[in-house]
Amino acid sequence: MSFRGVLVPVLTPFKADLSPDADKFVALCRGILDQGAAGLAVFGTTSEANSMSAEERRGLLEILIGSGIPGERLMPGTGACALSEAIATTRHAVDLGCAGVLMLPPFYYKGMSEDGLYAFFDKVIQGVGSDALDLYLYHIPPVAQVGFSLDLVARLHGDYPSTVVGLKDSSGDWDNTAALLKACPDMAIFPGSEVFLLDALRAGGAGCITATANMNVPMIADSYTRWQEDGADDRQAAITAIRQCIQGTAPMVPLMKAYLAMKSGDADWANVRPPMDPVAPEVAAKLDADLAELGFEFPGF
Amino acid sequence: MSFRGVLVPVLTPFKADLSPDADKFVALCRGILDQGAAGLAVFGTTSEANSMSAEERRGLLEILIGSGIPGERLMPGTGACALSEAIATTRHAVDLGCAGVLMLPPFYYKGMSEDGLYAFFDKVIQGVGSDALDLYLYHIPPVAQVGFSLDLVARLHGDYPSTVVGLKDSSGDWDNTAALLKACPDMAIFPGSEVFLLDALRAGGAGCITATANMNVPMIADSYTRWQEDGADDRQAAITAIRQCIQGTAPMVPLMKAYLAMKSGDADWANVRPPMDPVAPEVAAKLDADLAELGFEFPGF
Repeated sequence: MSFRGVLVPVLTPFKADLSPDADKFVALCRGILDQGAAGLAVFGTTSEANSMSAEERRGLLEILIGSGIPGERLMPGTGACALSEAIATTRHAVDLGCAGVLMLPPFYYKGMSEDGLYAFFDKVIQGVGSDALDLYLYHIPPVAQVGFSLDLVARLHGDYPSTVVGLKDSSGDWDNTAALLKACPDMAIFPGSEVFLLDALRAGGAGCITATANMNVPMIADSYTRWQEDGADDRQAAITAIRQCIQGTAPMVPLMKAYLAMKSGDADWANVRPPMDPVAPEVAAKLDADLAELGFEFPGF
Repeated sequence: MSFRGVLVPVLTPFKADLSPDADKFVALCRGILDQGAAGLAVFGTTSEANSMSAEERRGLLEILIGSGIPGERLMPGTGACALSEAIATTRHAVDLGCAGVLMLPPFYYKGMSEDGLYAFFDKVIQGVGSDALDLYLYHIPPVAQVGFSLDLVARLHGDYPSTVVGLKDSSGDWDNTAALLKACPDMAIFPGSEVFLLDALRAGGAGCITATANMNVPMIADSYTRWQEDGADDRQAAITAIRQCIQGTAPMVPLMKAYLAMKSGDADWANVRPPMDPVAPEVAAKLDADLAELGFEFPGF
């Protein structure tokens, strides 16, 4: 029973002292689910997950579960450069009842062999040692630099068909997503942007896991739900236009945070951890005006 | 009182279950110091530091200090992608009396601004909040992808002259090292390979921090100590030839580990954590033969 639909790599709010703001995080997670997201891919790139320690991420996950967010809706990022950390964090998520985890490859060392990358995931799966583990591979070469080749994905899925069940493709390269869908039809393949949602669904994809769903779940979820109905291409064009507007304005993570700060009246929403730079309120205001011209209505949170 | 001389990014031995072997680690550290190293840059790239969790690294550092290795000889790697982890790990090293720390930039997010990277180090320094902190920047763009521009180094050193006191340049680009030596003459600049040792010393450098010193401290330390004496170029040529022989044989970390396994008769020395691949004993034997032709004698450990 793998995930299907629209999943959201939820933004992580930070207080003025840059510690995570758990209350605000829980509220955003709840809002996103209420608006129709299939699941929460918390602790992704958009979440500034790698700007938080493993302890901070595990602590936030416990709070989230404790607040009543069901584990079956959670796909936390548990990848790490360190094998020991990847095992411990993944086991923690499984023990808390998370329905899946989304794992980056170990991304510090470059030029590692496919065997080395395979061995890493093999050791994680053996180290966690749980049938309850549903592992989604996180392919994001523009950031991590280290990625998953088609061969490596097929090998991991072939050896662990009921564990390595899916993949998020944030390559931004539709040809790669299409090749994955063809090579691994039994896996749940999610493009990392709603721009490819309809193409992916028509090719057997599972949905999308997308940053901009932090602002726009309702329209993207509607595109997902009604993809076989009349008007699917128009709905796709509308969410694509909104995505491109956001993406073309400023770096997305600080921009969306500045936008939430503006919409909520809570300036702390704009806080990011270095090395990210915050985005100025004027930029968020410009985005708001540009989105209004596209007919976008902020769904609230 | 910054470091000068030859520092060693010490290999981290792992047991058969891939947990760190603290006893073997302490013995190697002690041997390297006894052979003339000025200091131990433990938890570097060569140490597979990023394949260990922060807890594992902190635990090993405590064992090292507890075993009697003096803090004034230690420059542990404490960089991390996560600001919170970088602060906690750096403070831990300072509290244990380490004379310096060697810090990678946050290396997950790519394309971050200079202001963002500056802010990261600014927050680390403020967060540690100790006059005892001596911070060495670790520039290794071939691996980390994220590096330090000359402007960023000068800005950090200019704003924190008694804290940001040095840099390890593992760019492999002598022009960059030369430019750093010229731009920041008050900083302790270490090339990341003994190949550049004599050139660096003649240009005002502080020594070198080099992986191959795991096998060859005596010759490199001798080149450092007697760099103004007759025969300096010959001594440099000899250590360069040995370095190139090692570097040309196989990936250096697993190769040196396989070599130590062969020399010690302890096969576990060859263990590496994935995603690194181990190197076969035959490759180490070939290296041994090739080094013998260069007149190299393994100093033991």
